[in-house]
Amino acid sequence: MASLSPLINQLVESLTILPGVGPKSAQRLALHLLEKDKAGAAMLVENLSEALEKVGHCQKCRNLTENDLCPVCDDVKRNDDQLCVVETPAEVLAIEQTGFRGRYFVLFGRLSPIEGIGPDALGLHNLKQLVLDNQVQEVILATNPTVEGEATAQFIQQLLKAQDVVVSRIAHGVPLGGELEYVDGGTLAHAISGRISLS
Amino acid sequence: MASLSPLINQLVESLTILPGVGPKSAQRLALHLLEKDKAGAAMLVENLSEALEKVGHCQKCRNLTENDLCPVCDDVKRNDDQLCVVETPAEVLAIEQTGFRGRYFVLFGRLSPIEGIGPDALGLHNLKQLVLDNQVQEVILATNPTVEGEATAQFIQQLLKAQDVVVSRIAHGVPLGGELEYVDGGTLAHAISGRISLS
Repeated sequence: MASLSPLINQLVESLTILPGVGPKSAQRLALHLLEKDKAGAAMLVENLSEALEKVGHCQKCRNLTENDLCPVCDDVKRNDDQLCVVETPAEVLAIEQTGFRGRYFVLFGRLSPIEGIGPDALGLHNLKQLVLDNQVQEVILATNPTVEGEATAQFIQQLLKAQDVVVSRIAHGVPLGGELEYVDGGTLAHAISGRISLS
Repeated sequence: MASLSPLINQLVESLTILPGVGPKSAQRLALHLLEKDKAGAAMLVENLSEALEKVGHCQKCRNLTENDLCPVCDDVKRNDDQLCVVETPAEVLAIEQTGFRGRYFVLFGRLSPIEGIGPDALGLHNLKQLVLDNQVQEVILATNPTVEGEATAQFIQQLLKAQDVVVSRIAHGVPLGGELEYVDGGTLAHAISGRISLS
């Protein structure tokens, strides 16, 4: 935009890296930060740069944290028996809301030979060790129901086969409140093949 | 969120200052920045802190810029005859898109005795001087059609009365594509009182 000064244009551009923020919203955000909330913007700079500098991975579950252990791994009241494997930190938050109180392991991705993401990139060696060390009873695979997510779940299942641990997969089927008529075929096929006996 | 580390929680909180970003989106933005785009986040920190440090007001029109003059005031090809008065920098961008090629004056607010915003806070003295110095032919008042915006427009009209300059107000009425049936009463009243003779 020719009527914006170079520094402001630069700021607008760097705001477009945020998910869901296009050039127009980025412009609105930039002007808001510079015009209406300089104190908040300064705080954002400080907190973001501190987080970028200090936040790394939890030594146990690989989730994001600035400490050696994340708050979940550091919590002695958690149930050590269950370990839930997810693809991203956001999924930990989603599963937390269900009331799950076991431990987690965050893959930060899924197996994808095309993108060159193998077992090492997902820390699967650490996962195996963790299951062994913590005497986990059940590993719940909560990777996404995509082709790669399914492949990753199967890979982990094979990986843990020799160990004395139950490996389960979260259920896929018709969501609550969903109507059969409007559910896609793949989901419905999953719902039928994964049917549970009531008798 | 107890399952997020303190530094990440802090970052989430400081992201909620962005307009339209609630706690949930802020969480998504924070995890995106720390997990998927650290380089972009570092660039954002750099650009935002540089902008906060250097961006001030244009000496002529008060718009945001890191230089003495903003790109519009610095552009010799602009039409000096017309000066458009707006409340915010975002409105300059909106009016730029109409093809307007005159100059601007940005109030950064509107007269509001309740909030203690008087003529000085809006730089109205500078506006008067600017009109005089640049031999402006027409001042177009494009403040918003709110009570305060209208009061501000009237105040500026009075302020410039003694000077040899045409003062005009942008038209308010039914928007293009709008249907009379769905336009609110105030807008419709404006559209009727501001009717233009076709004969």
